[in-house]
Amino acid sequence: MNETHTIPICKLDHISIVVPNLDLASKFYLETFECEVSVPIDLPNQKMRIAYVILSNVKIELMEPTGPDSTIEKFLERNPSGGLHHFCLTTPDTGTAAKKVRLKNIRVIGEGVSHDDKDLFFMHPKDTLGSLIEIEEE
Amino acid sequence: MNETHTIPICKLDHISIVVPNLDLASKFYLETFECEVSVPIDLPNQKMRIAYVILSNVKIELMEPTGPDSTIEKFLERNPSGGLHHFCLTTPDTGTAAKKVRLKNIRVIGEGVSHDDKDLFFMHPKDTLGSLIEIEEE
Repeated sequence: MNETHTIPICKLDHISIVVPNLDLASKFYLETFECEVSVPIDLPNQKMRIAYVILSNVKIELMEPTGPDSTIEKFLERNPSGGLHHFCLTTPDTGTAAKKVRLKNIRVIGEGVSHDDKDLFFMHPKDTLGSLIEIEEE
Repeated sequence: MNETHTIPICKLDHISIVVPNLDLASKFYLETFECEVSVPIDLPNQKMRIAYVILSNVKIELMEPTGPDSTIEKFLERNPSGGLHHFCLTTPDTGTAAKKVRLKNIRVIGEGVSHDDKDLFFMHPKDTLGSLIEIEEE
């Protein structure tokens, strides 16, 4: 595979954990580790609330579904205690990255914009050997 | 909770993904992203083979079970395509960290030493709101 076909990665921005209760999870990280935890951010379009555990090199995103049709509600049904859901890599240009992903016959899903206005998409986990990988513009 | 009881965290060192086939997974990361992938490391005591995808700020550990009594074989039975298994935070002193963890009534499991001689333990996922968290000495 030619290197020009690989996707440039700036860093791993965050890992994401689905939790049944965002306030309890925020309290757990704050009381267990020396870290900061952001205030909750409501994302009504995605039917979830999130908060970030801020570490020196990455963030841990905590995600709580707020409706039965939330994209993460099914995950919580299969994993009632919650658990690791995906990780997010950043790239300089998501448009170019999505084209390269499609050329590799990896399905692009969930194209959209993050709550802080960054373009993003996901790679279908059935095409990535099991992991849901988010690609976000740096 | 007094801050002296929280565990100091240096960084998130790696996330770990269980994969059914380490060679295929290494090839996937190498051909999909601009990154380095280490040579496979055989861990016969843990009945697994691992390799590291090296990003600028963290590593992604790929883990393949090499025996039916491997600690990660059960995970693969539940998730035949593989998937996110745990993440690893580093701390200056795992002995002090393990004491603090026990004081919080979080079970300490899997105490041991990594393949590169660093003390480590895991926090029981039933006591951490669903995620398996590894703590390794910096």
